[in-house]
Amino acid sequence: MSEKTNPGNFFEDFNVGQVLPHATPRTITSGDVAVYNSLFPMRFVLQSSDEIARGVGYERAPIDDMLAFHFVFGKTVPDISLNAVANLGYADCRFLAPVFPGDTISTVSKVIGLKENSNGKTGVVYVRSTGSNQTGTHVLDYVRWVMVRKGDESTPAPEPDVPSLPTSVDPKSFALPPSTNFSGLDCALSGSSHLWGDYAVGEKINHVDGVTIEEAEHMMATRLYQNTSKVHFNQFAEGQGRFGRRLVYGGHVISMARALTFNGLGNAFLIAAINAGRHVAPCFGGDTIFAWSEVLDVAELDGRSDIGALRLRTIATKDRPCTEYPGALEKGYDEGVVLDLDYWVLMPR
Amino acid sequence: MSEKTNPGNFFEDFNVGQVLPHATPRTITSGDVAVYNSLFPMRFVLQSSDEIARGVGYERAPIDDMLAFHFVFGKTVPDISLNAVANLGYADCRFLAPVFPGDTISTVSKVIGLKENSNGKTGVVYVRSTGSNQTGTHVLDYVRWVMVRKGDESTPAPEPDVPSLPTSVDPKSFALPPSTNFSGLDCALSGSSHLWGDYAVGEKINHVDGVTIEEAEHMMATRLYQNTSKVHFNQFAEGQGRFGRRLVYGGHVISMARALTFNGLGNAFLIAAINAGRHVAPCFGGDTIFAWSEVLDVAELDGRSDIGALRLRTIATKDRPCTEYPGALEKGYDEGVVLDLDYWVLMPR
Amino acid sequence: MSEKTNPGNFFEDFNVGQVLPHATPRTITSGDVAVYNSLFPMRFVLQSSDEIARGVGYERAPIDDMLAFHFVFGKTVPDISLNAVANLGYADCRFLAPVFPGDTISTVSKVIGLKENSNGKTGVVYVRSTGSNQTGTHVLDYVRWVMVRKGDESTPAPEPDVPSLPTSVDPKSFALPPSTNFSGLDCALSGSSHLWGDYAVGEKINHVDGVTIEEAEHMMATRLYQNTSKVHFNQFAEGQGRFGRRLVYGGHVISMARALTFNGLGNAFLIAAINAGRHVAPCFGGDTIFAWSEVLDVAELDGRSDIGALRLRTIATKDRPCTEYPGALEKGYDEGVVLDLDYWVLMPR
Repeated sequence: MSEKTNPGNFFEDFNVGQVLPHATPRTITSGDVAVYNSLFPMRFVLQSSDEIARGVGYERAPIDDMLAFHFVFGKTVPDISLNAVANLGYADCRFLAPVFPGDTISTVSKVIGLKENSNGKTGVVYVRSTGSNQTGTHVLDYVRWVMVRKGDESTPAPEPDVPSLPTSVDPKSFALPPSTNFSGLDCALSGSSHLWGDYAVGEKINHVDGVTIEEAEHMMATRLYQNTSKVHFNQFAEGQGRFGRRLVYGGHVISMARALTFNGLGNAFLIAAINAGRHVAPCFGGDTIFAWSEVLDVAELDGRSDIGALRLRTIATKDRPCTEYPGALEKGYDEGVVLDLDYWVLMPR
Repeated sequence: MSEKTNPGNFFEDFNVGQVLPHATPRTITSGDVAVYNSLFPMRFVLQSSDEIARGVGYERAPIDDMLAFHFVFGKTVPDISLNAVANLGYADCRFLAPVFPGDTISTVSKVIGLKENSNGKTGVVYVRSTGSNQTGTHVLDYVRWVMVRKGDESTPAPEPDVPSLPTSVDPKSFALPPSTNFSGLDCALSGSSHLWGDYAVGEKINHVDGVTIEEAEHMMATRLYQNTSKVHFNQFAEGQGRFGRRLVYGGHVISMARALTFNGLGNAFLIAAINAGRHVAPCFGGDTIFAWSEVLDVAELDGRSDIGALRLRTIATKDRPCTEYPGALEKGYDEGVVLDLDYWVLMPR
Repeated sequence: MSEKTNPGNFFEDFNVGQVLPHATPRTITSGDVAVYNSLFPMRFVLQSSDEIARGVGYERAPIDDMLAFHFVFGKTVPDISLNAVANLGYADCRFLAPVFPGDTISTVSKVIGLKENSNGKTGVVYVRSTGSNQTGTHVLDYVRWVMVRKGDESTPAPEPDVPSLPTSVDPKSFALPPSTNFSGLDCALSGSSHLWGDYAVGEKINHVDGVTIEEAEHMMATRLYQNTSKVHFNQFAEGQGRFGRRLVYGGHVISMARALTFNGLGNAFLIAAINAGRHVAPCFGGDTIFAWSEVLDVAELDGRSDIGALRLRTIATKDRPCTEYPGALEKGYDEGVVLDLDYWVLMPR
């Protein structure tokens, strides 16, 4: 292999405290938003209409929070997870500022933990990645941990250093959109008459609809974010691999599930935080994604009478409608479950 | 099913005179236009070039008329046709003002007719839907009628009320673009030297080219318009249904046929009105669409020496070239016909 | 066939010295760039970030050079190659000015050579095509030659007139971006620490990654450029043809190879010229593209201490990784080779 191609980092290349500024800064445009809207059935009104967005205090419609996440995340792949065996989890993900078309997004990661596995062949790397816009404002901050191969198995194991992470983001730490006021939102235009106060802890919602993912679609989305993970794009190599097929980027399933939640959570147009996320099983081209959600918690927000927060757990399945709310078992998950996502949304009151 | 998901309206939920403001207002961008141009072989010069558009009096290139139609139409689906058995027809569709990137489009429908079917299980709902931009200017107005299931078959039938609809829109009622002048259009740049006066009533044009529709493509287009009709997206459910496959949105076939007409009608870059439209047979991923047109009528336009109108009937087929002009039979249609569209276009003289 | 559809030009329709202004001028938008970025794994930082582009002297991020090429090329198809049997080659292609979203691009071709083949059924047409923006500035200029069918084989052969073409564009003739200065480029953000001086003549780079092309993807790209070549879109006709399938537009493979070169040539974000290009074998939906490059030459550029030029030969293959650098044989090419491209890139020093 040429020394000029990117070999990615191996487990022994990471050190706690190390800071990795990632390539490539990316200017996000209304074109990116359109491609995203063609790939996911997005209908949240705040992101759909500049007029509605201006009416509640934004300069224009912000981009979907998960689209911002994918751009920030995509940049970390060449440095963090090119040699990853598995993406193990997310925690403490906070959406800090809206992203608008025209913004240029960069990502920097800091290694915050390392733990070699007992097999001596792999280790877990914990990074906090922060996305910023062209003014240096942080737009997104999250922790993820991945299992990465060692390049040289004889390298001695580092001192284990596992960061302590919150199981849920505290609503007091939410970065709420300033100078906004959602109290006058027209529910006829948003597509749902159900506001924050209408949801109760323990309530379950089957989002009903199913959407099939095509190979062209998940590759287009994943390329748009400049995510270079090889397993999504190369049928020649993957055809000889474990699954015999390309894997769908896990974030694609998150966006699809998020879009499906519109049917039942139509006013949940902002994500405040992601507490935890688990890709329970792989998805492939041709799979049809369904989703259901449970309300885990509700929270008022300091100084805001116009919005409140809902903590949701959204489960996505493939080729299985969610009529029976398939979820976690004592060990493992019900047949068909592919995603288990725990997050906070903001909703008008 | 959660009470918070959208069950759609059933036949008995509609009343004549009822007004339905639809979610979701949508700001249209040059990104939407680019996605559309990647899915349909659009070449009409007015929509292709800001410079050409400015030269004839527009502020910039307007979006394709059918793209505007799809956005206006898409919003009506959750309220009008989520429980539809069939989309029966269109009438009296007029394009009232150009739509530009940056415009935010909303749709309101009014129920103008109801007729229960004799089986007591379904009924026909007639609605007039009107699309407006952010200034309240109407951009598009049309009638469609759909067969909708009853939710509760014991609900008594309403008094039948069938609106009287024109078989063709009168050219005197066309909303012509003001302050435009098409007389200086450069035919080398538009791609066709044939102007309004070159077309004769009865003339038939085989548009020659065929374009295959992929599953990813029709889903991307239909999602872009926020059309939520379930049959286009869910292979898991449709695989067990009548056709064993996802259905292509009928409007996709209209746009494809419209794009194909460029080859023979290259200067017909504006649609003034749609008189009638019929989706003769369903289309599926993998089908190749062909089209031919007949000139049904020609009309001069009051006070305009720069443009005239042609009434066209465009027939689209699948997997059958239109060399023999397949069309309507005494009963039904020739093999392969999927669309029968009667409309008025504007063309420079 | 209606006289109003475009029959294309046949060999006998061309005359040396003939000038063909092509339809359709096209305003390029950030939406087009987004669709392109969703179809090819583009990561070159200059095109990715408005901020980076401004930092080196541009008004904003220019579009990818190959995207500009495809728009300029696409317009020539209806007039030059609708009746082509084969696209034989490119030469003397120079990128003359950056193209930005908002620019409107037109193309004019001039016939510069003709030579009938000895079979009397076809002939070779040489054209120089020039793309210009809305101010009349030339953005791109290239020669290609195609084998075109005769419409009437009894037409006498023209006097053979074969233009003399350079085998390589002279770096002294490059149109370098004025008022730019690449010396301060941040290699952490560009994704590669290798600059002009790090590459040596004879060096070979296997770009490692492979990307599979889906039918929807190549059709979307090719439609975006308004390229009307029939063989890319019509499965009904092509299914009965020589290959039994749609052909992927050769330019799609060039863009894919170009995007793959990022891994090893991450700072080669500008193409100065294409010396020669050959589509060695056809590509189809489902093929996985790989690429490798050899440095053929290096050149300093007059008056520029911030950038230098590399002459590259990039070979693309299908369904064959480039570990062994498959290339040209004494006769023909190694198994799997689909593209042989000789071009100059600019790179910071």
